[in-house]
Amino acid sequence: MAGSSFGVIFKISTFGESHGEGVGVVIDGCPPQIKLSPQDFIMEMTRRRPGKRSSDTPRREEDRVEILAGVFEGRTTGAPITLFIRNRDADSRPYEILRQLFRPGHADYTYFKKYGHFDHTGGGRYSARETAARVAAGVVAGKILEPLGVKVMGFTLELGGVRVENIELEYIGKDPLYCPDPLASEQMQAALSDAGKSGDSLGGVAEIRVSGCPAGLGEPVFDKLDADLAKAIMSIGTVKGVEIGAGFEAARLKGSENNDPISPDGFLSNRAGGILGGISNGDQIIMRVAVKPIPSIGRRQNTVDRLGRSAELKFAGRFDVCALPRIIPVLEAMVKVVLADHYLRSNTTTRRKT
Amino acid sequence: MAGSSFGVIFKISTFGESHGEGVGVVIDGCPPQIKLSPQDFIMEMTRRRPGKRSSDTPRREEDRVEILAGVFEGRTTGAPITLFIRNRDADSRPYEILRQLFRPGHADYTYFKKYGHFDHTGGGRYSARETAARVAAGVVAGKILEPLGVKVMGFTLELGGVRVENIELEYIGKDPLYCPDPLASEQMQAALSDAGKSGDSLGGVAEIRVSGCPAGLGEPVFDKLDADLAKAIMSIGTVKGVEIGAGFEAARLKGSENNDPISPDGFLSNRAGGILGGISNGDQIIMRVAVKPIPSIGRRQNTVDRLGRSAELKFAGRFDVCALPRIIPVLEAMVKVVLADHYLRSNTTTRRKT
Amino acid sequence: MAGSSFGVIFKISTFGESHGEGVGVVIDGCPPQIKLSPQDFIMEMTRRRPGKRSSDTPRREEDRVEILAGVFEGRTTGAPITLFIRNRDADSRPYEILRQLFRPGHADYTYFKKYGHFDHTGGGRYSARETAARVAAGVVAGKILEPLGVKVMGFTLELGGVRVENIELEYIGKDPLYCPDPLASEQMQAALSDAGKSGDSLGGVAEIRVSGCPAGLGEPVFDKLDADLAKAIMSIGTVKGVEIGAGFEAARLKGSENNDPISPDGFLSNRAGGILGGISNGDQIIMRVAVKPIPSIGRRQNTVDRLGRSAELKFAGRFDVCALPRIIPVLEAMVKVVLADHYLRSNTTTRRKT
Amino acid sequence: MAGSSFGVIFKISTFGESHGEGVGVVIDGCPPQIKLSPQDFIMEMTRRRPGKRSSDTPRREEDRVEILAGVFEGRTTGAPITLFIRNRDADSRPYEILRQLFRPGHADYTYFKKYGHFDHTGGGRYSARETAARVAAGVVAGKILEPLGVKVMGFTLELGGVRVENIELEYIGKDPLYCPDPLASEQMQAALSDAGKSGDSLGGVAEIRVSGCPAGLGEPVFDKLDADLAKAIMSIGTVKGVEIGAGFEAARLKGSENNDPISPDGFLSNRAGGILGGISNGDQIIMRVAVKPIPSIGRRQNTVDRLGRSAELKFAGRFDVCALPRIIPVLEAMVKVVLADHYLRSNTTTRRKT
Repeated sequence: MAGSSFGVIFKISTFGESHGEGVGVVIDGCPPQIKLSPQDFIMEMTRRRPGKRSSDTPRREEDRVEILAGVFEGRTTGAPITLFIRNRDADSRPYEILRQLFRPGHADYTYFKKYGHFDHTGGGRYSARETAARVAAGVVAGKILEPLGVKVMGFTLELGGVRVENIELEYIGKDPLYCPDPLASEQMQAALSDAGKSGDSLGGVAEIRVSGCPAGLGEPVFDKLDADLAKAIMSIGTVKGVEIGAGFEAARLKGSENNDPISPDGFLSNRAGGILGGISNGDQIIMRVAVKPIPSIGRRQNTVDRLGRSAELKFAGRFDVCALPRIIPVLEAMVKVVLADHYLRSNTTTRRKT
Repeated sequence: MAGSSFGVIFKISTFGESHGEGVGVVIDGCPPQIKLSPQDFIMEMTRRRPGKRSSDTPRREEDRVEILAGVFEGRTTGAPITLFIRNRDADSRPYEILRQLFRPGHADYTYFKKYGHFDHTGGGRYSARETAARVAAGVVAGKILEPLGVKVMGFTLELGGVRVENIELEYIGKDPLYCPDPLASEQMQAALSDAGKSGDSLGGVAEIRVSGCPAGLGEPVFDKLDADLAKAIMSIGTVKGVEIGAGFEAARLKGSENNDPISPDGFLSNRAGGILGGISNGDQIIMRVAVKPIPSIGRRQNTVDRLGRSAELKFAGRFDVCALPRIIPVLEAMVKVVLADHYLRSNTTTRRKT
Repeated sequence: MAGSSFGVIFKISTFGESHGEGVGVVIDGCPPQIKLSPQDFIMEMTRRRPGKRSSDTPRREEDRVEILAGVFEGRTTGAPITLFIRNRDADSRPYEILRQLFRPGHADYTYFKKYGHFDHTGGGRYSARETAARVAAGVVAGKILEPLGVKVMGFTLELGGVRVENIELEYIGKDPLYCPDPLASEQMQAALSDAGKSGDSLGGVAEIRVSGCPAGLGEPVFDKLDADLAKAIMSIGTVKGVEIGAGFEAARLKGSENNDPISPDGFLSNRAGGILGGISNGDQIIMRVAVKPIPSIGRRQNTVDRLGRSAELKFAGRFDVCALPRIIPVLEAMVKVVLADHYLRSNTTTRRKT
Repeated sequence: MAGSSFGVIFKISTFGESHGEGVGVVIDGCPPQIKLSPQDFIMEMTRRRPGKRSSDTPRREEDRVEILAGVFEGRTTGAPITLFIRNRDADSRPYEILRQLFRPGHADYTYFKKYGHFDHTGGGRYSARETAARVAAGVVAGKILEPLGVKVMGFTLELGGVRVENIELEYIGKDPLYCPDPLASEQMQAALSDAGKSGDSLGGVAEIRVSGCPAGLGEPVFDKLDADLAKAIMSIGTVKGVEIGAGFEAARLKGSENNDPISPDGFLSNRAGGILGGISNGDQIIMRVAVKPIPSIGRRQNTVDRLGRSAELKFAGRFDVCALPRIIPVLEAMVKVVLADHYLRSNTTTRRKT
């Protein structure tokens, strides 16, 4: 596909599919002498893993990360780091009926058009399983960012039409939906339950905040920090929109309202979302991401088969109802990858104080 | 900056700034034997040029494109095409007061942090003038797309809070704001006039539609068509958000509502916006773009100087009130560049019928 | 290291080291629907494997290629292909004495300077083991070239000072040194035996010929076919020189001697080596490669330890005496990778007959 | 052609041809705040310029470098630097007879095959004129290397079969052939004179030495320093071979002869040519380059026309007799570009002392 790499200095290349041996990632450009062990991945892989919440699919994936290359005596060497996550439960039977039919909202149709085939056993390369490799890459990126004090935190801002009203950041980690508002979370869970019962799925909006990011990251004019963040996030399967700072709301503001005044103590507001002219300004980076409802639903749908003939599709079985909150660690991972890459790039493009 | 190139096969590299000799672009990877002359650029450069509308700045830029390289006897040769647009009116006096002050909402602050200087004479590299080079590149990209029947059309969907209600595509070309709704356009013009009088600026939302795009463009998993479009568009200075198809609205839909059913005659709806799994599906590609209000305003603003001391900033002079509609040809150009690049890439990655 | 990828469209990224789990390669950009199975790799991996010849090290490596990703139902899918070759015999004891000493002629010293460590257990990333991944990638590249009729053949032209006098191409496959001259081969084998007995090693010269390469491959001005071939070949550890066509001999010819006259039946000589202006001319591509003697020898050598203190180094054990002929399949593999990449690139940059 | 860029962080993209407005280069990734003015280029451009030596073509090129972008108030800004050198004397009449005939040894044939045309007016993109842009880029690269104490020096080692015997480095600058041996230089000049009189041309060998290069530059495994140097040098039109350190001579040495012993004071010999495992070792970097005789000669040659019909070609006019010594500044420039790029890359990949 020739599009499976991301980054310039800290470059990740994911591989693998849901039907095969597993998924993985090669990370080229990670600095040497960073401590790294399989244990470092457990928490983030678990956060991404389905099966923890009532709304999630019951398939059990045990996402243990093997380090195939790039680490010697517990530290990175500067050589490419290869991480691999084996597939389990590769029971493709539930998908056998899909051999002939394109699932609406899925990439079956476009993969068939482009590659002359598609993977009826569960999406293959375009399965959400690929994101496990991204999360693993994000853990390594995080190792570069942590000493700088950069923190990336995502949460559920909206789900099934329910919007967060009060944001309590410290509550996020305790909430099953990574929602910062206990009341909203309850309503969201009810919405998930209802949708699941009716064989339907829900979408939502995630917010990501980056604190501690130094000013100066981003390479104009095309590799602006916001441009690379937008690409990284839009490259995740279910994402249909991304906005920075005030985002679409900025379109309704006047310049006098949208400009962030500057004081000797810093910016007095943050409608820019921490990025000016494609370069981080030292303030918090804020993004919001539109996540579409998962296309696999239990309801009858109209579609066509490989020969273009009209058909009806109805899955049995259970499915994830919403990509949120599982997508949160994926979003965080991609943001970390972008920031680690731009941090390393900035070492060569940014003026150093001497 | 090491980030001034975009594209893999059809690769554009812009250069130049508002203070210097001019702006330009090198296009590497354009196929040979395509007819190209300086006349081909006039229409698009004129659409981008300020000075046509009452709301635009009165500075007159005559954006004539010189072909410095890559064309022989009226046709491309396969060698890099270099296009150059000289600066005129390089009167930097109005900006002299900016030598010490960071303009709120501009990149002065971040450029200073990153590069140790900023260009007080009008933005330098981060001036909107850079987009003239993008528009020129888009004209060449269009030469690759035209024989395929691909058409890219942008329009003003919302401006200063006024939203289009009825879309008459054939009217867009006649409207001074590239607005498809005469009534909405009148209200938008009134809003522009009011904002201009009060020394303020406005934002808006643009929509871009691509018709005739073949199925199969896009290289998963990172160089998905929507991911590259998002990056291309977010790399334009005033853009704060981008969405594909139903976009943020998809976050509020159920799967049964958001999935586009497929029939033997094609997709029965287009909430996907013409892209599934990062690959074009043959349907119309639809995007919307949030454009922030122009940060240069005539009102008094709080800021700091290079030494971090509190200061007030108030410009005299006239400014653009809104980046719309001038940004429309820039958006179209970037979309064309993405599509031309992905079309050429698809020649090697997509299965060919034999 | 951020330098572990090669290619633009057919892009290979190797990973792995001698001390770890194994070595492997991710190939991104391979077209879909190509038949590929683990059996396809056996012959080339065996050719590269040591242990077949008396001059080779007795360490037994069983280089079985696992396909971790990118193949579905026996065919490539267009997704990244990941090939993995597990390490066996990872007995690091013989190298334990190297924990403190830099081996002359090896990369221990430079890796220590660059990365702050080096791998005393046998080279790690800079072990010749990495070339197993290249050979595997070459097999996939070969699948793209075979239908075009492109054939890549390398042979030993010189070894230990013995130069081939008569080239019998059909004999190469039968010769233990891939030498096209039975008499020269006998002398080379004697030289290898002598050197081995005295604990020393030998260098040599390989020649590579490509037949059936279509005209038009190569992307001026930097990605010329000969430039990319030179890089690909010089990136192999023991290579110290590369020449195309007449090579260094051309430096002693006059223009009237070196120019290849053209006739209606093609070029009347081939001092260009099949490449003019960086683009293949349809004639046979010819290269020669200088291979240095393997630096691991059984003789006493002067060196320093990690603290810079003078030391003497003397290995026990047996070593390869010469990188030839084992390097031949590696050279062929890299040439195939370059040609496959340029062939796919040429689909977008070369004028197609219609 | 999609191959006109070189470098990862310090990235140069040349453009232009002999028939058009001029040649130039965009340099993206040059750090900010470096002093740069048009005067900085004069010396190197003059060294590359023909017309100074009796053996050179009398065409007068005045290669003045214009800075079109990237410099503000005398210093680089971090934005892309665009350098442009206008063509003069664009008298294409001497080449008119070439409209139909392919010149032996030139790229006319391969460009016609690839692009469907070739430039009969003097080579167009594949004219040696393109190297003027490389020399200009080398001047900027030199600005990065100078503060580090890196010095790049090339000289004529062999010309027309005459080989240097005694190397007096301080004499090189005074010699018209950049030859370090006055006696050899006289013989070379005589050979040039003889060849010129007989309408023929000569080849030669250049040597390049880099002193002061810090250890640690080079990114294994593909972007090894020697691999990138080989590519950079082989991408110059008339180069047919490149070797590092002992080069092809290493193929005839034993390991015990070729390994450079290490002492507390450094390496005791330099057969490695300053690079081990693709990484600079702090010693002098040494390369030799085979330069073919210029293919344009005054003698009658056999060729074909565009329709493949047999033809004879005989130029009137005068031509350069040898690419040496003019190619020396081009070689030096490319070496500087490689080193500057790898130096900047090493800022992110190499372990920093703290």
